[in-house]
Amino acid sequence: MHFASDNWAGAHPNIVRGLAEAAEGHAPAYGASELDKKVEHRFSEIFERDVAVFFVGTGTAANSLALASCNRPGGQIFCHAEAHVNMDECNAPEFFTSGAKLVPVTGPQGRMAPDALATAIARFPPGVVHGGQPVAVTITQATEAGTVYSLDQIGAIGEVARKAGLPLHMDGARFANALVTLGATPAEMTWKRGVDILSFGGTKNGCWCAEALVLFDPGRAREMHYLRKRSAQLFSKSRFIAAQFDAYLRDGLWLELARHANAMASRLAAGLVSTHDARLAWPTGSNEVFAILKNARLRALRDQGAVFYDWPATAAIKDELATDETMIRLVTSYATTAREVDAFLSICTGE
Amino acid sequence: MHFASDNWAGAHPNIVRGLAEAAEGHAPAYGASELDKKVEHRFSEIFERDVAVFFVGTGTAANSLALASCNRPGGQIFCHAEAHVNMDECNAPEFFTSGAKLVPVTGPQGRMAPDALATAIARFPPGVVHGGQPVAVTITQATEAGTVYSLDQIGAIGEVARKAGLPLHMDGARFANALVTLGATPAEMTWKRGVDILSFGGTKNGCWCAEALVLFDPGRAREMHYLRKRSAQLFSKSRFIAAQFDAYLRDGLWLELARHANAMASRLAAGLVSTHDARLAWPTGSNEVFAILKNARLRALRDQGAVFYDWPATAAIKDELATDETMIRLVTSYATTAREVDAFLSICTGE
Amino acid sequence: MHFASDNWAGAHPNIVRGLAEAAEGHAPAYGASELDKKVEHRFSEIFERDVAVFFVGTGTAANSLALASCNRPGGQIFCHAEAHVNMDECNAPEFFTSGAKLVPVTGPQGRMAPDALATAIARFPPGVVHGGQPVAVTITQATEAGTVYSLDQIGAIGEVARKAGLPLHMDGARFANALVTLGATPAEMTWKRGVDILSFGGTKNGCWCAEALVLFDPGRAREMHYLRKRSAQLFSKSRFIAAQFDAYLRDGLWLELARHANAMASRLAAGLVSTHDARLAWPTGSNEVFAILKNARLRALRDQGAVFYDWPATAAIKDELATDETMIRLVTSYATTAREVDAFLSICTGE
Amino acid sequence: MHFASDNWAGAHPNIVRGLAEAAEGHAPAYGASELDKKVEHRFSEIFERDVAVFFVGTGTAANSLALASCNRPGGQIFCHAEAHVNMDECNAPEFFTSGAKLVPVTGPQGRMAPDALATAIARFPPGVVHGGQPVAVTITQATEAGTVYSLDQIGAIGEVARKAGLPLHMDGARFANALVTLGATPAEMTWKRGVDILSFGGTKNGCWCAEALVLFDPGRAREMHYLRKRSAQLFSKSRFIAAQFDAYLRDGLWLELARHANAMASRLAAGLVSTHDARLAWPTGSNEVFAILKNARLRALRDQGAVFYDWPATAAIKDELATDETMIRLVTSYATTAREVDAFLSICTGE
Repeated sequence: MHFASDNWAGAHPNIVRGLAEAAEGHAPAYGASELDKKVEHRFSEIFERDVAVFFVGTGTAANSLALASCNRPGGQIFCHAEAHVNMDECNAPEFFTSGAKLVPVTGPQGRMAPDALATAIARFPPGVVHGGQPVAVTITQATEAGTVYSLDQIGAIGEVARKAGLPLHMDGARFANALVTLGATPAEMTWKRGVDILSFGGTKNGCWCAEALVLFDPGRAREMHYLRKRSAQLFSKSRFIAAQFDAYLRDGLWLELARHANAMASRLAAGLVSTHDARLAWPTGSNEVFAILKNARLRALRDQGAVFYDWPATAAIKDELATDETMIRLVTSYATTAREVDAFLSICTGE
Repeated sequence: MHFASDNWAGAHPNIVRGLAEAAEGHAPAYGASELDKKVEHRFSEIFERDVAVFFVGTGTAANSLALASCNRPGGQIFCHAEAHVNMDECNAPEFFTSGAKLVPVTGPQGRMAPDALATAIARFPPGVVHGGQPVAVTITQATEAGTVYSLDQIGAIGEVARKAGLPLHMDGARFANALVTLGATPAEMTWKRGVDILSFGGTKNGCWCAEALVLFDPGRAREMHYLRKRSAQLFSKSRFIAAQFDAYLRDGLWLELARHANAMASRLAAGLVSTHDARLAWPTGSNEVFAILKNARLRALRDQGAVFYDWPATAAIKDELATDETMIRLVTSYATTAREVDAFLSICTGE
Repeated sequence: MHFASDNWAGAHPNIVRGLAEAAEGHAPAYGASELDKKVEHRFSEIFERDVAVFFVGTGTAANSLALASCNRPGGQIFCHAEAHVNMDECNAPEFFTSGAKLVPVTGPQGRMAPDALATAIARFPPGVVHGGQPVAVTITQATEAGTVYSLDQIGAIGEVARKAGLPLHMDGARFANALVTLGATPAEMTWKRGVDILSFGGTKNGCWCAEALVLFDPGRAREMHYLRKRSAQLFSKSRFIAAQFDAYLRDGLWLELARHANAMASRLAAGLVSTHDARLAWPTGSNEVFAILKNARLRALRDQGAVFYDWPATAAIKDELATDETMIRLVTSYATTAREVDAFLSICTGE
Repeated sequence: MHFASDNWAGAHPNIVRGLAEAAEGHAPAYGASELDKKVEHRFSEIFERDVAVFFVGTGTAANSLALASCNRPGGQIFCHAEAHVNMDECNAPEFFTSGAKLVPVTGPQGRMAPDALATAIARFPPGVVHGGQPVAVTITQATEAGTVYSLDQIGAIGEVARKAGLPLHMDGARFANALVTLGATPAEMTWKRGVDILSFGGTKNGCWCAEALVLFDPGRAREMHYLRKRSAQLFSKSRFIAAQFDAYLRDGLWLELARHANAMASRLAAGLVSTHDARLAWPTGSNEVFAILKNARLRALRDQGAVFYDWPATAAIKDELATDETMIRLVTSYATTAREVDAFLSICTGE
């Protein structure tokens, strides 16, 4: 009963096979191999547009490089208050930008509210240097609350960013999970709604180490080559990241794995709601379930081997918690089995 | 005939097998798995001492984090003029340190001369703020010239650093290659000669992505956890790096692969010297051969499929070059075959 | 009727005289002159303790250097949500620290609430790298709301910081104004209540450019010399800053000027309250008055030459504002005259 | 006999008078005053072109901001090996740029040789990320060797920079001294010869704290406002810097002071050469004299109250030094008197 995180899972057999195939022979290093180029081209196909692709080692690197490429002195970057870049990256965005500030913007269920964003941006009028200058907006899809932005919601954020002249970055650590929830195309969920730069994650969905930075305007790629190298994110044997993406994107594997993970989360969420002891903190839109359970139940679950994390409740949630309740996070992955889910649920309903 | 770089090779079958085994099941992320801990312990065994180990993704990351951990405001870091950190890392050390300066120190055959180092350090007397303050010394073993420091030579550098109160870092991107050349133990080649921090490279010697930062004083480890994370070098599925090292360090594989690469380089060097058209720029001490050949010969080699790089000659070498000669670099690896070497040599000796 | 800011004032005649005297003759540069040393010693007298003093050019420099000296990788710095370091320094603290994060803490009337601070710190448990690590607490005295922390309130913050092992910094851009309000000694308002580092401002209170960083633990001074120089804040003709402080601190001039500025603010506040159209947003504790007036009245004031800024209302204040009201800030200084204040008030009471 | 540095001098009476006049009344802060604007306009007149002007506190700040405004990731900045930015600013340029590298270029008598510059730039071909990318060239006028670049020599450097697409910065800490030596106009010595950004120094030539960054392309000014503020170099009472420049630039005071300082240096140099014990290390082109004297003579000079610094000899000079000789630096200023010079010389010629 592994629900601690999707990064506790290993790597899908196809990914492992891809790594094994890449292991043979010689090929140019630092991203110049045939395989690197082939996979970069594959990204352009998937996004129905010429894109520039940069493989990196971690999601934090992808996000931080994206934001660094947008930054200017005194830069203000607008993100949701609970965003991963703001809460869980140990100041990597601040470090990669040499001192940008992340400005938290509120919004229900992990989604930034467009009017709250517009208000936050308006606090920094052009030409007033004291507060700094807006330089970028970043959203997470799927969100840190396990929800997804609808296409319209992305478009609304994109519109606010566009009016303010700001590039829009999407942290897509769980991009595939959001995509299959919406039933949208990659193009629809990104540049067609105003996204300029994407962190495209493969690690949480069955790769071991495959993250890509996707620039929808390849004209912005020039500096990124230097940014990536000076950030120690240019891998000499880059083709092994390419090999993972090659397997990941072939024959729809990535979507299949995301659908499975999401289905497991839905099964878990539906099961929890049907018990009388549990309720959801937020609706489940991807492969993360945020639920509120009785503490006694949580003890029973852990006693019987379930692994998951308590999760810090936001102020709004905290007000709703009874003293004998705790908010938890349950994450499913490509490797989660229905049996695991059902075993978990049976403990939840057991007396 | 692949002699472009050891990072054009792929990954050894044992490494691939290690990755495949790690792919199954669930395990705590971010370095907390059993496998991570087991391999960390293995490093302590190999170095005959409690060490703190940090897995990272690239050699540049290992070097830059090592130097960042030593830095202070106005920090001067002493390195050989041709050091990888100085020439080939796109200012990553400067970026990770938020502005340290690399002070180039001369010395023949890629090795820093101890008295030149002492002189360079003496230019920064304590309490004079204008020039900044010395904060670290870094050497590369094996060197960028394909030579190695003897144990005594490391000790001499270590002694200069110790007297100046400076930590000594070793860039061991080709640590194994140097080790088997010297026939020394890892302890003898590092902390017993004054090395405080080591970048331990596996990637060039048969892994695909396995680099470790080794701190001989585990008391310095606390800040490194945060340094690594904020630099986007903490891998969620860290166990896949551990798995590579696990296979690499098991049953002496790492030494065996290095011995093979070195033997191929020696064969190449010996063969070249026996021709009348070629000579060595520096003696071959590891898996890199720096040679000076006639341009006509180089064209013939490339015409017949040999892959290698021209190499910028240092000032001293440049003076020795005839107008129809060029300096080149030939790198061997675990994957180089004697047949490749001999094919190359036969072109060199052919009329 | 100048109430825009205390930095719209010029320099007190005694300060000008000090500058003129320092202009003659030769003296060692970069802080090594007799005058520099004499004034540094004067700080130790005033604070009843050996302190290390660093003259710098701006309050932003003093604050940013103080925070930089406390920072570590992934550093979280706790400040009031409305703090100058957070709102008005264009990311200078983030830049000087190479990427620390300022964590806003709430509290009424510009003062950080000790329990809110403790809660904020507790969000970063030791050893969990993802969120970063707490490194410092900073408060502003007098606050950005024109109030002051009582000695007990400073002590309560100091106690939270001490328990968390964090240094406490005080932004004293209006140190003298707070001091005379409390009737305390400099020692009582700082290190006796747990303050470790102080930005001691003279510029807003009658100097033209005189800011000092005061370290109550001189053992921490070593690195600051390099930090200041690499931040371009070591002035070659440093003695001209020393000269300003020399005049400023002589015969209680600094306290006299602050008393005057505060008295003018009190007169203004009292006068406003006595009208029926105006009320105070926060109680007036120093030389800043935050008031809420009818828009029509503000127009009349400006028409007749009064200079002051509208001020962005905090959320709590905004709820209290009528649609025809605006919050403004009125700042007095050593140069404010009772006649100016009374002229302003007469417009406020006029029909 | 004060020859330690021109920054050991105080401030010229006209400068002091300017400060006193600025001290009265109220004026907008942060560079928005009438006086600020008037002086900015004066710079455009002097340079016969619309320029953007930014007042800052130190020469190090001006240089570092100039270089930061040119920097890009992996940035390589070309300077003379002995340049102040490289030797005496405690990594401020590296810090302000968040990690640029200063690439030392050689050249006789403190002047960068154009062909050495071209060779240095050619080491970084476009598109090869490992070494980083060239971003700027910086020269010092007058140089750190007390010489000056002729207009043609500036033009030759400017031409190399232009061909490489690099902006050219001039560190003009002693701009006026060089200008009067050449008898050129400010325009001729800067933008007409390819200079894009200038650090215009007033402090060493009779101001106490007056440095300006001059951008010959005002279109580059937008970001500089934020760069300056986030670097803590935006002074609230900026008008006091403006006031110094106002006096400095009025009625040719700046040129008159420079002429005097240069004349004193020439008198000193000529006098030294006429003795048999001393010789010049480099020809004297501004207000710095670098001379080689017998150690016994230096002791006599110091015994009789002369103040000056020994100076580290470059390698070429070191070869020429006898064992009983030392190289020293003698700096004159607006405040140096002919009597001081003659007293110094009489000791030199005395038996």
